[in-house]
Amino acid sequence: MAAIYKSGEELMNEVRKTKIYGESVSFWNLGQAGILLKGTEEDGLLCIDPYLSRSIEERDPKTEFKRAFPPVVDPGMLRDLDGVLVTHGHDDHLDLLSIKEIAKGSDSMFAIPAPLISLVQEHVGKKYIHAAKDGESFTIKGFEITPIPAAHTEYETDSLGNHTFLGYFIEVNGIRLFHSGDTVVTPELIEKVKEFKPHVAFLPINGGDYFRTSRGIIGNMSFREAADFSAAVGVDLIVPIHYDMFPNNRENPVYFVDYLFHRYPNQKFHMMVPGERFIYHK
Amino acid sequence: MAAIYKSGEELMNEVRKTKIYGESVSFWNLGQAGILLKGTEEDGLLCIDPYLSRSIEERDPKTEFKRAFPPVVDPGMLRDLDGVLVTHGHDDHLDLLSIKEIAKGSDSMFAIPAPLISLVQEHVGKKYIHAAKDGESFTIKGFEITPIPAAHTEYETDSLGNHTFLGYFIEVNGIRLFHSGDTVVTPELIEKVKEFKPHVAFLPINGGDYFRTSRGIIGNMSFREAADFSAAVGVDLIVPIHYDMFPNNRENPVYFVDYLFHRYPNQKFHMMVPGERFIYHK
Amino acid sequence: MAAIYKSGEELMNEVRKTKIYGESVSFWNLGQAGILLKGTEEDGLLCIDPYLSRSIEERDPKTEFKRAFPPVVDPGMLRDLDGVLVTHGHDDHLDLLSIKEIAKGSDSMFAIPAPLISLVQEHVGKKYIHAAKDGESFTIKGFEITPIPAAHTEYETDSLGNHTFLGYFIEVNGIRLFHSGDTVVTPELIEKVKEFKPHVAFLPINGGDYFRTSRGIIGNMSFREAADFSAAVGVDLIVPIHYDMFPNNRENPVYFVDYLFHRYPNQKFHMMVPGERFIYHK
Repeated sequence: MAAIYKSGEELMNEVRKTKIYGESVSFWNLGQAGILLKGTEEDGLLCIDPYLSRSIEERDPKTEFKRAFPPVVDPGMLRDLDGVLVTHGHDDHLDLLSIKEIAKGSDSMFAIPAPLISLVQEHVGKKYIHAAKDGESFTIKGFEITPIPAAHTEYETDSLGNHTFLGYFIEVNGIRLFHSGDTVVTPELIEKVKEFKPHVAFLPINGGDYFRTSRGIIGNMSFREAADFSAAVGVDLIVPIHYDMFPNNRENPVYFVDYLFHRYPNQKFHMMVPGERFIYHK
Repeated sequence: MAAIYKSGEELMNEVRKTKIYGESVSFWNLGQAGILLKGTEEDGLLCIDPYLSRSIEERDPKTEFKRAFPPVVDPGMLRDLDGVLVTHGHDDHLDLLSIKEIAKGSDSMFAIPAPLISLVQEHVGKKYIHAAKDGESFTIKGFEITPIPAAHTEYETDSLGNHTFLGYFIEVNGIRLFHSGDTVVTPELIEKVKEFKPHVAFLPINGGDYFRTSRGIIGNMSFREAADFSAAVGVDLIVPIHYDMFPNNRENPVYFVDYLFHRYPNQKFHMMVPGERFIYHK
Repeated sequence: MAAIYKSGEELMNEVRKTKIYGESVSFWNLGQAGILLKGTEEDGLLCIDPYLSRSIEERDPKTEFKRAFPPVVDPGMLRDLDGVLVTHGHDDHLDLLSIKEIAKGSDSMFAIPAPLISLVQEHVGKKYIHAAKDGESFTIKGFEITPIPAAHTEYETDSLGNHTFLGYFIEVNGIRLFHSGDTVVTPELIEKVKEFKPHVAFLPINGGDYFRTSRGIIGNMSFREAADFSAAVGVDLIVPIHYDMFPNNRENPVYFVDYLFHRYPNQKFHMMVPGERFIYHK
């Protein structure tokens, strides 16, 4: 049973060939929270939370975190990448092997939550690491990026007050995108995202519960919270994420679709299969 | 609870403003089987099966076919329309009131299954009616259209051998689209669609059963058949239709999503809310 | 669309006529968390959390807690009742109007969490009130009952250390039943219920989330936690509750069924419609 729509060099060719006109942006689903973003040629190519290896299960063959499908591309194939945004330090978001290979194969820079940059330094050679901090905007080619704190499931800062869990506001080519990272819903998050007015929101829907928490699996907003959150803040298109890769920490995305269909029948969403491209137009 | 994403002149403005670049096509969900298609400016604007009134419930207040949401546009607003394709004579596909208003407000022509053109003639004034026949291709501006027979739930022809139930193969701007009309799956349909290789297939998912049939509701392919059919013939993107407008003849589209997610995890689909635009890129 | 299977005197006749043989017990779904329990004739008739009025919406017409279906019986019809168990003080569990009518029409006693008995006293005339306390077993005819603390969503005690949120272990005619009241999952709950080894567990599945909590709706275990909890402690039959009555605080029970079907395909459960009887046999 093939789980991936397009992969490897075929996918990378599609990325290269994709041309963006007008106010629009293209993105690809890399699985779990991994998103590849492309604006116009001048805007460049950005990747969020690439888990493009099997590091977790190779390091610990007994882990319950076994991939349901192979990496859609090898990290070394991301040769044209201009930047990588990492939301937090969990292995399925900050994968040092993927980062190392990306650093070898491209000129990408790396935006890493400030408290975690020491973990990454030895793996990226001379590539530039940006210490991402709450509210401090920065630019990667045409992408304007503002980190915001995420609560996974609590807000957490280091001794300097820098947040270890981040989400990202991204503006490119007239489009505002919000990648929440791993987070629950908080009043602060609602307020910030409402102000940002994202066209597209990438939101986890796998939730959290007593049993996963007791096995060390930190929770996220639930499918229901992702829908209610989007309605509360105003989102044009919801892209549910963080449900496809690990069967042990999955939520059936159909619950999300069912809840939307009955509760918010006019709310746009798009469910992506691994390796799928979606071009969003304003 | 708002059921419509965008409607009325706001929607029509979006239609006018939507620019198509490269090999792509834009379409809007008008509800039930109604689709509005736009290619490049030269390609023009095409509409399939517009049910943009409340004719059914106005004619028979006791009908079980009551709209769950209002028409997303008034038919008279479709001023730039170049063509209307009708798949068959049922009221939710061939709505004489919608057709009459479209004829008044635009220069559109009307492609009607050959056996049904007499029903339409008095309603369209001097506008051109094309008698659509199985396998006989015709052109509306940039749209190349080929009717194929549909089985709802049997193939049915008039005394001249012309089919009363049709689907349409549509080629525009490098994209091949298939609107099945109302049909079940047949060996002939599989063969024809496999040969056509559609990028996008608009397929009913509401199915049919003894009880609906016994109330005079003619069946369609089921959500499961739509998924298996797409896998059998090869479809890049499935757009499920014919489930949103009439609660009495609905199938929960979530069953379709659930079946795809578990059985065809690499199959792209997009579920549209009423009044939503989707731009498909090759 | 009738929402109730059987109601009123027809239901009460069924209750009277139901004969229990061997090790078994009969119960009826009264809606929300309301359960009516019958053992042999000697065991008597017990009711848990009866919300058999419209008190909430009558007191506050603007409440979002509006019944989706009428009371399945009038509380005054419960003439043969021997006892009422109340799990906690929320209006849909401790309904003073239902209690008052039951006290008028029957010889029932009332087991109320110790911190709440003063609320009830004026409503039950000379009927006996039992102050239910964690771990202190008591008997109502053939029913042996042990209150245990519930966490809704925290454990809460009064100044004397008595819990305001309770669940009940109930043994009757060789059958062990657990009615959790409103609670989340805790390590203590797992330990206690595992030791009790219930044949039947009545568990809420409506969960809780940021948005309901922020509207003052206190959470329960989710459908997924109810399933995982049952697997963790060992339950022969799960009866999901607390999802049918209030659309604003409902969870689609289908998510529960779907999760069980895929994750615990050998776990027995029974989903009850309002007014339905189920006879459980050991």
